[in-house]
Amino acid sequence: MIRVSIIGSGNVAFHLATAFEAAEQTELLQIVARNPQNNFPKLSNRTIHSVQDLALADVYLIAVSDDAIAEVAASLPFSGRLVAHTSGTVAVSAIDAKNRRGVFYPLQTFSKSKPVSFSEIPICLEADMPQDYELLLQVATAISEQSYKINSEQRKSLHVAAVFASNFTNHLYSIASEICDEHQLSFDILKPLIAETANKIQTLNPTQAQTGPAIRNDNKTIEAHLKLLTDENHKTIYRILTQSIQHGKKL
Amino acid sequence: MIRVSIIGSGNVAFHLATAFEAAEQTELLQIVARNPQNNFPKLSNRTIHSVQDLALADVYLIAVSDDAIAEVAASLPFSGRLVAHTSGTVAVSAIDAKNRRGVFYPLQTFSKSKPVSFSEIPICLEADMPQDYELLLQVATAISEQSYKINSEQRKSLHVAAVFASNFTNHLYSIASEICDEHQLSFDILKPLIAETANKIQTLNPTQAQTGPAIRNDNKTIEAHLKLLTDENHKTIYRILTQSIQHGKKL
Repeated sequence: MIRVSIIGSGNVAFHLATAFEAAEQTELLQIVARNPQNNFPKLSNRTIHSVQDLALADVYLIAVSDDAIAEVAASLPFSGRLVAHTSGTVAVSAIDAKNRRGVFYPLQTFSKSKPVSFSEIPICLEADMPQDYELLLQVATAISEQSYKINSEQRKSLHVAAVFASNFTNHLYSIASEICDEHQLSFDILKPLIAETANKIQTLNPTQAQTGPAIRNDNKTIEAHLKLLTDENHKTIYRILTQSIQHGKKL
Repeated sequence: MIRVSIIGSGNVAFHLATAFEAAEQTELLQIVARNPQNNFPKLSNRTIHSVQDLALADVYLIAVSDDAIAEVAASLPFSGRLVAHTSGTVAVSAIDAKNRRGVFYPLQTFSKSKPVSFSEIPICLEADMPQDYELLLQVATAISEQSYKINSEQRKSLHVAAVFASNFTNHLYSIASEICDEHQLSFDILKPLIAETANKIQTLNPTQAQTGPAIRNDNKTIEAHLKLLTDENHKTIYRILTQSIQHGKKL
């Protein structure tokens, strides 16, 4: 059993703790919730409130906000142990060099209210030393079917790509929902379309999967759409994404 | 059995024909492929090449490109019958008034290569006369579990919303894929994230589901992302969508 302790009490910490608890090859040793109110009812016997109380584990995962990682890593009362953070944007070097350093970044969007199946979540791994990489790989394999070796530079780019593929995409869903509301249309009508659009690119290259008036150069429809849109912000986004579909690809 | 004939030989015509062929309450009577090369191998015994050969059916569906609908409707060699087009953008009035007019718009993204389960596709219906609406509703119910009464004005807005929710969303997938390529990252890493982002809004309101640096006002990450992006077009889209998430909602 690989003993894993988690420092943090947000969504990522919560979902990771639950996954390690359920996995056969890992033991969730302790979880540090600095705020005593952030308790995990099911894990209360292993919840501690200060890093000073951390026992000896094989891996410590720091799952706190990006800005707090360096400070938390520096505050750890031990050295020479394997400490990895779970952030998509922070370099591995943010972890105090007194410990062996790594990254354990699960690439998914987490909501506390929605259960997550970790087995399908890709985990991006990095470590200063090969044997630590192997240990992180074992921990990742215990909870997920997909892990990738990704260095700090690549991970930053991957995070940008994820912002386009997830955060910005969700914002387009919001705009679509607003347009529906304005015209007394149920957003439910669009849900099968949204599901199929995401489903298509599981097998098709997204550039090949592109449909719609922009790629068809259907200027009559594009003009009609721009006239219909009343929100200046929506008009700007419509124009820029249409242009990007039509001319963005210079390859 | 409701006898349905289809005029057109593109993706929508093909998928509709297949669905009516399989449904118990409908009979696919004829399908008009003007170009003799656009044959449907499995439906070849019912494929004709001219509207002049159309037999008496209960409903005629015009599934051709938006620009051709008026011309095709005017060319029909009969009058007083129920004729509906399948377009999201064209008004019901584009159909020649010599026939009874309607709209039968399946809201989904169709690729010829990918099979489609019609039962989950919402069909947006409109008809000049109540009894024709009832007939279209029966035809829709024969192949789908969801149909909606949507007038021509609403349908135009719904189509704009669909462009945001599907075409523009797919383009963001393309950009994410390009960023991955540039940094020797497999686009596969992002696929579970894309699936979960689309899955979330099946139950959560997309505005509530918003995550990422923009909604958190995490300017440090936003600046770092803008620095990382090398393509000016990607930078512009990143900036505008970030601003829209942060300031677009004045409600």
